[in-house]
Amino acid sequence: MNFNLTILGTGSAIPSFGRFSSAQVLHTHEKSFLIDCADGTQFQLRKYNVKTNRMNHWFISHLHGDHCFGLISVISTLGMLHHTGDIFVHAHPDLHPVLQAQLNYFCKDLPFQVHFEGFNPLKNTVIYEDRSLSVSTIPLVHSMPTCGFLFKEKEGQPHLNRELLDFYKVGIEDIKHLKEGADFTTEDGIVVPNSRFVTPPTPPKSYAYCSDTAYTERIVPIIEGVDVLFHESTFGESEAFRTKETLHSTAKQAATIAQLAQVKQLIIGHYSARYATLDHLLQEAQSVFPNTLLSYDGMKHEW
Amino acid sequence: MNFNLTILGTGSAIPSFGRFSSAQVLHTHEKSFLIDCADGTQFQLRKYNVKTNRMNHWFISHLHGDHCFGLISVISTLGMLHHTGDIFVHAHPDLHPVLQAQLNYFCKDLPFQVHFEGFNPLKNTVIYEDRSLSVSTIPLVHSMPTCGFLFKEKEGQPHLNRELLDFYKVGIEDIKHLKEGADFTTEDGIVVPNSRFVTPPTPPKSYAYCSDTAYTERIVPIIEGVDVLFHESTFGESEAFRTKETLHSTAKQAATIAQLAQVKQLIIGHYSARYATLDHLLQEAQSVFPNTLLSYDGMKHEW
Repeated sequence: MNFNLTILGTGSAIPSFGRFSSAQVLHTHEKSFLIDCADGTQFQLRKYNVKTNRMNHWFISHLHGDHCFGLISVISTLGMLHHTGDIFVHAHPDLHPVLQAQLNYFCKDLPFQVHFEGFNPLKNTVIYEDRSLSVSTIPLVHSMPTCGFLFKEKEGQPHLNRELLDFYKVGIEDIKHLKEGADFTTEDGIVVPNSRFVTPPTPPKSYAYCSDTAYTERIVPIIEGVDVLFHESTFGESEAFRTKETLHSTAKQAATIAQLAQVKQLIIGHYSARYATLDHLLQEAQSVFPNTLLSYDGMKHEW
Repeated sequence: MNFNLTILGTGSAIPSFGRFSSAQVLHTHEKSFLIDCADGTQFQLRKYNVKTNRMNHWFISHLHGDHCFGLISVISTLGMLHHTGDIFVHAHPDLHPVLQAQLNYFCKDLPFQVHFEGFNPLKNTVIYEDRSLSVSTIPLVHSMPTCGFLFKEKEGQPHLNRELLDFYKVGIEDIKHLKEGADFTTEDGIVVPNSRFVTPPTPPKSYAYCSDTAYTERIVPIIEGVDVLFHESTFGESEAFRTKETLHSTAKQAATIAQLAQVKQLIIGHYSARYATLDHLLQEAQSVFPNTLLSYDGMKHEW
């Protein structure tokens, strides 16, 4: 299945130059996943025509306001829009009491339940799984417990050559054996090799979201070879000295991680409020990892 | 002094057609007042270059999310921007525990204090006063305790003719008497009438903000003769039947209130999410009260 990403906000903590703070939606063919939810996310969702009817699992990287202050508004608005299906907010357990207090006062008559699924952001573990994909945490290095998220499609079934199955009149039991790798033997005793019937499954898609974090190579084994890596790039080289104090990354550091992990494509974002233009960030990243894209609010990217 | 209004959001509960929800800032020559604070207000404040350095008193009409969900983000961002001066949030007392819980978790190191000033929205009373203006509540009719706010400049000092004071060498004691209405008598015993020295003060400015409310003539005596009335106009005539259930107003009802209260100018806003264009709302209001303006996000209006 294809992954289809909509990036709703590319700014960092303080909105500037028309950039909202962190929020993204990853669509697969049957579900949508909200990743972080800054103030104003409900507005961005509507502005960019994001379908929210199957957006039931939400993942919050950490509890800084620019990654979660929009939750109550999105929930409240979905309530007014008669959203169906419960919502599962996957976040650090500290979110529960604060958001619950808001829900109790402001959202008394929601047409759905809001469930809190707490996890430890500092442990690399699977926190969500359905029949087609899994989501696991990517422990990051920031000023509070923070993680990224790895969305990984499950290995699909091998493709079967339907015409050949018909030609040899292969039965259900034999099809099962073919899928397991066996050859097929006709009634006349002729052995037809497995490879004539079966071609490997489409490689599973993957997406790694890493924000906010200082440069850390510890994430490399977790995100190795992903199709698309979003890595925060708050600063350019001229402000590299700020990364130690703020525990953020430069565009060049993001690109270094992309290169070390041999990902297929890098998207940078979470830009400091000081940058009116961003070309230098792209150039600095591309000098290390050429296949880098500069994200912008409303960007849609499919793979 | 002049009043200078910036309207940050003109939508109602659900953002649509690029309209944010309710938030406004009223600037006087020395202070700024935030009126309601929907999700995304911090973004709008920056987009429209609103000065926030003297914005210390905030007034919340009622505790529906589209009027207060942006508070935590604005407070958090002002903290990061090193805002100085304490913030006083004037609102229904129920806001205090919910917002305080957020502040305790997300805003531990603010460079200012946040004070809660509770009031009863259903009682018409002065809730703020400084040397140049007062703010009083305008009880409204909505699905929860709700009020508007009347900003009223205090009566100024009469204007003195400086040249004439110099010409007659009027002393400080006599200037005081002139201000009180006395005539001036020269050393030669000539009586110069008070009206030659003194002209009446500039009429005090006023602004009434009324959102959200069903049609209610009970507000007319409170807002009588104001310079500018903002009155919510959620619906057009074709949806007038919805006002009873939702306790909102039509543009025509807003105009009727403006006419009954003999205000100088009406601004309508708080538009239903169903309207892509708003011309019909303006026409319907102007058919009753010609001096009506259609508000838009980012509108600045001075008087």
